Order: sequence, then structure tokens, then C-alpha cells
Amino acid sequence: MDILCLDLEGVLVPEIWLSVAERTGIAELRRTTRDVPVYDDLMRYRMDVLERNDLKLSTIREVIGGLEPLPGAADFLRWARRNFQVAILSDTFYEFGMTLMAKLDHPLLLCHRLTVQDDRIVGYRLRQDDPKREAVRAFHSLNYRVLAAGDSFNDTAMLEEADAGVFFNAPANVVAEFPEFDAVDSYDALAQRLKQLQGG
Amino acid sequence: MDILCLDLEGVLVPEIWLSVAERTGIAELRRTTRDVPVYDDLMRYRMDVLERNDLKLSTIREVIGGLEPLPGAADFLRWARRNFQVAILSDTFYEFGMTLMAKLDHPLLLCHRLTVQDDRIVGYRLRQDDPKREAVRAFHSLNYRVLAAGDSFNDTAMLEEADAGVFFNAPANVVAEFPEFDAVDSYDALAQRLKQLQGG
Repeated sequence: MDILCLDLEGVLVPEIWLSVAERTGIAELRRTTRDVPVYDDLMRYRMDVLERNDLKLSTIREVIGGLEPLPGAADFLRWARRNFQVAILSDTFYEFGMTLMAKLDHPLLLCHRLTVQDDRIVGYRLRQDDPKREAVRAFHSLNYRVLAAGDSFNDTAMLEEADAGVFFNAPANVVAEFPEFDAVDSYDALAQRLKQLQGG
Repeated sequence: MDILCLDLEGVLVPEIWLSVAERTGIAELRRTTRDVPVYDDLMRYRMDVLERNDLKLSTIREVIGGLEPLPGAADFLRWARRNFQVAILSDTFYEFGMTLMAKLDHPLLLCHRLTVQDDRIVGYRLRQDDPKREAVRAFHSLNYRVLAAGDSFNDTAMLEEADAGVFFNAPANVVAEFPEFDAVDSYDALAQRLKQLQGG
């Protein structure tokens, strides 16, 4: 039995901040880790945008409540949970992510927390440095083989630390920069690849 | 967000070996970690009984396929997964446990593997020494607070290593031997206690 670590946004659900950008019309919120590889830079930028636009947490939560898993994601995840022990490793926040977890039968989610005051996001607490790599290490410390799939820069430490890592729907520039990882673009192809990698 | 580590047998589902003993009429299989605290002693004994009684893995799997979660367990687990990140820490084997996980919407299960030849259980591979304690340590290494609930001797390392541990439906002799842990006997009481312990 292997552990399968999956990124959340872009792999199982839409990019949350992109969705907020679309619903609110604030184009500046369209940036993701695909554009800004250093996560802390990206978050400082986002919080600045929220403040300037007077955007509250409850508004963001409403948007997230209207999101659905990506087409095919629920079926893929059901398959994955029958064949692996699945952990979702994400750089999102529980305040955002738990609504989406409810739509996926609550897989284990390891992510971060926001600091909220009067319905405003005033800060965030990363659980630790290099959280996805550390999570893979933790499962290794329990003598598991670990497979991993993600779509962007903030997943490469996870893919690298895992016994095998696969890009899923990653943009061409990310794939080109990390040619050591396989890249697939559909859940069928991902499941097929994971089956090949399993137990070996 | 805290991690909640739960034992499986006796906490969420019936004791698997007890159920096999009842269905097969082999009374010697009634022993559990409640009777034999050293797990390896218990497993050697069980495999010896299986061999003497010509009992195959497929027969055991049929029995397990007929088991259901304990009354109220599914509802409790749904509540727990909305309020914590849940990991099931068990000394069972994936060959037994996965059928039961399917009936509980596949929470993360950390347990062991059997060695099987020609439908016979010929051995078992413990994932590591002191597996429940190590799992709590792994979650601590990810900067989580960890709460835990279990019912027997093989859970006390987990309860001890966790930030707070609670006995659930533990027999009186186990509770008496470890007075440092709270003991509750219903899912309502367990949920209430976990809520009190959460985040603090």
C-alpha cells in the first residue's frame, strides 16, 4: 500500500483565487503560483489586493461554496482511495478548503490557516517551511512509498521528495523546467501512470 | 486544525478477529490485544490457529465483507471529518481493512500488510515498530496538534504521544491501568470531549 499525495487546486478543484478573480471582477487576483513561484510573495500581493478592494472573507467563502470539483475529479479520487492511501497536500487554507473537501467525501487535507479579524483576512500562517516536501518525508518516516501528482511550481518539492512524481495538467513552462517528471493531462492517463508506479 | 487519530477496531468497526471467531466457531480466535498486550505474540498465535483449522484468507474476507461499522460510527466519523483531519491508526492489515474503509467513505488508514500465499496467511509485515506512536510523531513533525482515541493496550502509545488522548469504550482493566487518560463510552461523549480538547 502506497501513499498518494495530490495537490488540490488545478488537480481536483478549480484554482480558488482565479475563481474569486472571475466572480469579483478583480483581475489582479488572477495570479497563481504558476505566475509567481515564491508563495510568500504571492500571498502578500493577494492580501494587498483584498485590502485595496475591501473584499471580505465571507465573500470569498460564498464564491468557494459555489465551486465544484473539476469534471472527473470525484471519480478519479474515488478510484485513488480504493488503491492508495490519499493525502491532499495544498498551499490553500482550511478556511477555504474545507467546503471543497465536503464535496469530495473529506479526504485528509494538509494545508495552512488564515488569520481573520472582523471578516477580513489580515494574515496567514504557513504550517511550516517547505510543507509539501515535509509531508512526503513524514510518510517516508512511517515506511511508506509515496507517489505524488501536482500541477505547478509549488508541487515540485513534493514530486522530487516522493518515490515517483507526475505532473497533471501542468502548463508547458512548468513541464519544460522539470523534464525529470512525467506529465499527463487526463485523469485516465494519471490513473494508468499511477498503477504502473504502484508498489514498485 | 488538529489531526485526530482514531483506532479502528472497537472504535469504529467490530473487532475483526472476534467476528471471524464467531462466524467460524473457532473460539481460540477470540483473543485480542485486550487479552494479549504484545501484538507479535497475538499474531503468531492467530496464524497458528488458522493453520491448524485450515482457514483461508478468502473465508476471512467473506466475514469482513459482512461486517458493518458500529452503530453510530459513520455519523461520528462524518462529524469528526468536518472538524478535524482524521487518520485511522490500526494494527489490522490492508487486506482486511480496505473493505471496511469503503463503508466509511475511505478515511486515511495507516496499518500493516499480510503475506499471503495460495490464499493462506503465511506471515505479516508490521510497517514499523511502535507504529501508532510513530504516526503521531510524523504529524507532530508537520506542526499539527494531535488528538487521539482508542480502546486498548495497543493504543496507549498513541494516546501518550498525542497532545491529548481519550479512551473510547475501553475495558475497565485497561482504563484502570492508565488513569492518566480520560475514558468515555459513547460517540456523543467522545465528540463533546474532542471539542473541548480542540485547538487548545
